[in-house]
Amino acid sequence: MEIQKPLILIANDDSIASKGIKTLAEAMSEIGEVVVVAPDSHQSGMGHAITLDRPLRVIPVKNFLPNVTAYKCSGTPADCVKFGKHFLLKGRKIDLVVSGINHGSNSSISVVYSGTMSAAIEAAIEGIPAIGFSLCDYGTDADFSHTVPYLKKIAQKVLDEGIPTGIALNVNFPAKSEEEIKGIKIGRQAIAVYKEAFEERKDPYGRPYYWMDGELYNPDNNGGTDEDILKENYISIVPCKFDLTDYQTVEKMKTWNL
Amino acid sequence: MEIQKPLILIANDDSIASKGIKTLAEAMSEIGEVVVVAPDSHQSGMGHAITLDRPLRVIPVKNFLPNVTAYKCSGTPADCVKFGKHFLLKGRKIDLVVSGINHGSNSSISVVYSGTMSAAIEAAIEGIPAIGFSLCDYGTDADFSHTVPYLKKIAQKVLDEGIPTGIALNVNFPAKSEEEIKGIKIGRQAIAVYKEAFEERKDPYGRPYYWMDGELYNPDNNGGTDEDILKENYISIVPCKFDLTDYQTVEKMKTWNL
Repeated sequence: MEIQKPLILIANDDSIASKGIKTLAEAMSEIGEVVVVAPDSHQSGMGHAITLDRPLRVIPVKNFLPNVTAYKCSGTPADCVKFGKHFLLKGRKIDLVVSGINHGSNSSISVVYSGTMSAAIEAAIEGIPAIGFSLCDYGTDADFSHTVPYLKKIAQKVLDEGIPTGIALNVNFPAKSEEEIKGIKIGRQAIAVYKEAFEERKDPYGRPYYWMDGELYNPDNNGGTDEDILKENYISIVPCKFDLTDYQTVEKMKTWNL
Repeated sequence: MEIQKPLILIANDDSIASKGIKTLAEAMSEIGEVVVVAPDSHQSGMGHAITLDRPLRVIPVKNFLPNVTAYKCSGTPADCVKFGKHFLLKGRKIDLVVSGINHGSNSSISVVYSGTMSAAIEAAIEGIPAIGFSLCDYGTDADFSHTVPYLKKIAQKVLDEGIPTGIALNVNFPAKSEEEIKGIKIGRQAIAVYKEAFEERKDPYGRPYYWMDGELYNPDNNGGTDEDILKENYISIVPCKFDLTDYQTVEKMKTWNL
């Protein structure tokens, strides 16, 4: 009897045309049956947006990779996962959703804005084990070669051991450098914030417009964060949940007289 | 000496033209100095999206309400808060950010997809006390009259007592009905999921497109959830945080041999 390969759904936010998703799909096709549903255009910073006010277009992509079925979708990363689960793969059990590899870090507060992580968290909401992979290199031609053995190792571990229902792993890789990666560490999300600046410019008609630009400010010195782990040249894994309730504050507020 | 009124920044996701934001701005103008920065078009389901690939337009809105300064912004709800804080009100201390009143519930898992709550959570990330208000009525002409005394009461309470740094309150009001609201209860986010269905249609050229439609499925029977509270005709408040780390799983995964 043939052993059935695990079914792996892949999404991302950098679009179907990105190098990162190709690297990820190639690696995953060695351990499972792979279906890709990825945005047809760049969706960075899309957070957990979903498309409610217009319909989606979903088009098969031929010759994406051998042994990989691929589609491009006009929606957001979260839409891609929903469409994959509830339409394309309806009735089949998806064993794992992986997202990425993102071109750029999704550590610290970036997890909140990240389309890559929203695809993974969407899967977690659906009860599917999920991993978002990101590389700390924003280049469109970034070097992902050092991530490949770890992609397979981490995905296989999740398939073998499972993770608690409702959890998505936020995996960030240090950028490729001369120094070899030291290993993997489990950590927590650094409590940091983007300090935004808005640059005002004038269009050719004299009307103002504003470019947003931000720099991460990380005052979190309590140790064990994803930022700390990446600085030491380890791969960082933060298990994320979608229950935003702050239970401590729930208890505190019960004493409010409202 | 004149006592300075608290500075209150208002955003939403239903756009500057919605009834909900006008109701909220009117109520807040009775307790503080109000500045509104709201999307110029509907941004429901935008999650925590931010605009990275194009500049923003921000245009003053004349005669929005007496004593209220208002702007419409081409960006997302989170962009509105960022622009308000880092450009329009740069250098001033914002005492409170309120978002809404959303036309439709943001209880349970909707908090993750909600533009209204992303504006509030963006403020929490920035260290500003924040509240997202939503009404369980999707109608564009929904009746908000029963929310007004509570809007002021809850906002004033937050201004007086404070909430822990990094927390945004998710406040959901039952829809207006014949039965009077029973009061306010503090709860937790129900662990529920949208069961999506995609309806395939054909455009006039014979090409397929897909409408997403979902229904909330709530298997969370452990009590104390926002859904439970709303069903009893109470106002539900859930304090939300942006640290997605699941600390239990961090400890568990440290035993993984990776």
